[in-house]
Amino acid sequence: MLEKLSEHGCFGGVQGYYRHASPAIGLDMRFSVFVPPQTRTGGKLPVLFYLAGLTCTEETFMIKAGAQRVAAELGMILVSSDTSPRGAGVAGESDSWDFGVGAGFYLDATQAPWNRHYRMESYVVDDLRQAVLENFPADPQRMGIFGHSMGGHGALTLALRHRELYRSVSAFAPIAAPLHCPWGQKAFGNYLGPDQESWQQHDASELMRKLYAPFPQGILIDQGLADKFLLEQLLPERFEAACREASQPLTLRRHEGYDHGYYFIQSFAEDHLRFHHRILTA
Amino acid sequence: MLEKLSEHGCFGGVQGYYRHASPAIGLDMRFSVFVPPQTRTGGKLPVLFYLAGLTCTEETFMIKAGAQRVAAELGMILVSSDTSPRGAGVAGESDSWDFGVGAGFYLDATQAPWNRHYRMESYVVDDLRQAVLENFPADPQRMGIFGHSMGGHGALTLALRHRELYRSVSAFAPIAAPLHCPWGQKAFGNYLGPDQESWQQHDASELMRKLYAPFPQGILIDQGLADKFLLEQLLPERFEAACREASQPLTLRRHEGYDHGYYFIQSFAEDHLRFHHRILTA
Repeated sequence: MLEKLSEHGCFGGVQGYYRHASPAIGLDMRFSVFVPPQTRTGGKLPVLFYLAGLTCTEETFMIKAGAQRVAAELGMILVSSDTSPRGAGVAGESDSWDFGVGAGFYLDATQAPWNRHYRMESYVVDDLRQAVLENFPADPQRMGIFGHSMGGHGALTLALRHRELYRSVSAFAPIAAPLHCPWGQKAFGNYLGPDQESWQQHDASELMRKLYAPFPQGILIDQGLADKFLLEQLLPERFEAACREASQPLTLRRHEGYDHGYYFIQSFAEDHLRFHHRILTA
Repeated sequence: MLEKLSEHGCFGGVQGYYRHASPAIGLDMRFSVFVPPQTRTGGKLPVLFYLAGLTCTEETFMIKAGAQRVAAELGMILVSSDTSPRGAGVAGESDSWDFGVGAGFYLDATQAPWNRHYRMESYVVDDLRQAVLENFPADPQRMGIFGHSMGGHGALTLALRHRELYRSVSAFAPIAAPLHCPWGQKAFGNYLGPDQESWQQHDASELMRKLYAPFPQGILIDQGLADKFLLEQLLPERFEAACREASQPLTLRRHEGYDHGYYFIQSFAEDHLRFHHRILTA
């Protein structure tokens, strides 16, 4: 059951906010959906899932990226999830901005006390996907995924781990090799425990290295060169090298003068939507 | 002197946030500017001032309206002010969301204790305008103004009161006849005192009625019909009638399904930028 929190006219479509009970998380979760005007003609539409970064919510992308205009033109549904469970009540979950609340890292924690509710991978690939299919004119055969920073990590890893669910993937400034950066090490250490073998299953660069061209139509990544997290946290060059090893076509665009925020994302969001639309409607 | 708070690459231009001392207000004020990439060619660019609504800041429009894309295409500078002084220290100034902090109503208060710092009209037409002219490649002969809700009231009244400064004006869901709505009566009563004669000088509909076609190239207003403030607070029909009396060409578009928020504004922001650009570059 979906509870409607609000709906707003937007570019001839509807921007909505919803709440539902998530079996995977064991708590209520919120998410947002933009439905373009093309639903009036009936038929199922392609869907693009957006995963947001640290401290963000299901609202961030819908408020700041200016993507609805393009989705309304192309006839794509946009979906954005929250970035972690809310109200799990785990001690210390709100102590830092880069772990716990707002920082679920799109994986299922295996370590107590996090493993009870912090299960964002199952949430996104199962519960959220199901809710979208049941309540919106979404085509299960035409789903793509993208995201920013922690959500770029999420998009790349979920696409690689669930290749059958997502036909297209892209990212803005993703945490591209979390094994090798402080954000990733902190999150993986706490959520997955000390065994680094398990970490590799959630590192986009490690996952990619073991595959052969999983997305033959290419992957698109945009990265700002004025991004203060680039050198220590994001490490796109490691993902680039992994794609080379895997014969995975990658378009990694490095943009001078752009930082880590949504002024960067809004500048290139249109390119990402058109990239996904091209693949999803091919 | 302008203090740079932050600058961000955006659509090939620069989105900046700045602070400066305002003589009119007697306090520091913040504002935001988007400078499009066309400055690289030298020369002065047209400028469009945006006045935001109740509770907003200089950030709101720049984050939520998606206007930089169009400004970057057209080569227009966008400027947005804050909605009131901050830190004036007037007793009770933060007690309500529709008066005081975040609710300066773009007029100069005449009543103590508000008249010391709450002088947003002088701020916008003098200090902000001056700061933009001194620090950015802004053409003083090509300036337009628009705004939302309280800021729509501000845009209409400042344009009508300072016709020589602004060549084009438009609004999203403006408070179009504040004399006749609770928001306006509360603000005018406190800022201007009980003499309703003075209120008329800050009511767009009253100002318009006494003029003859002050903006011969037209005024553009967009209004959502699902706007919960429409019937009690906004009253665009009064401004429409005043324009008829004044032989002022007005395009008042009423949009079914759109509410008072930025999903509405982002849907029609492009039309407003093109409207201003057409007039400012004619």
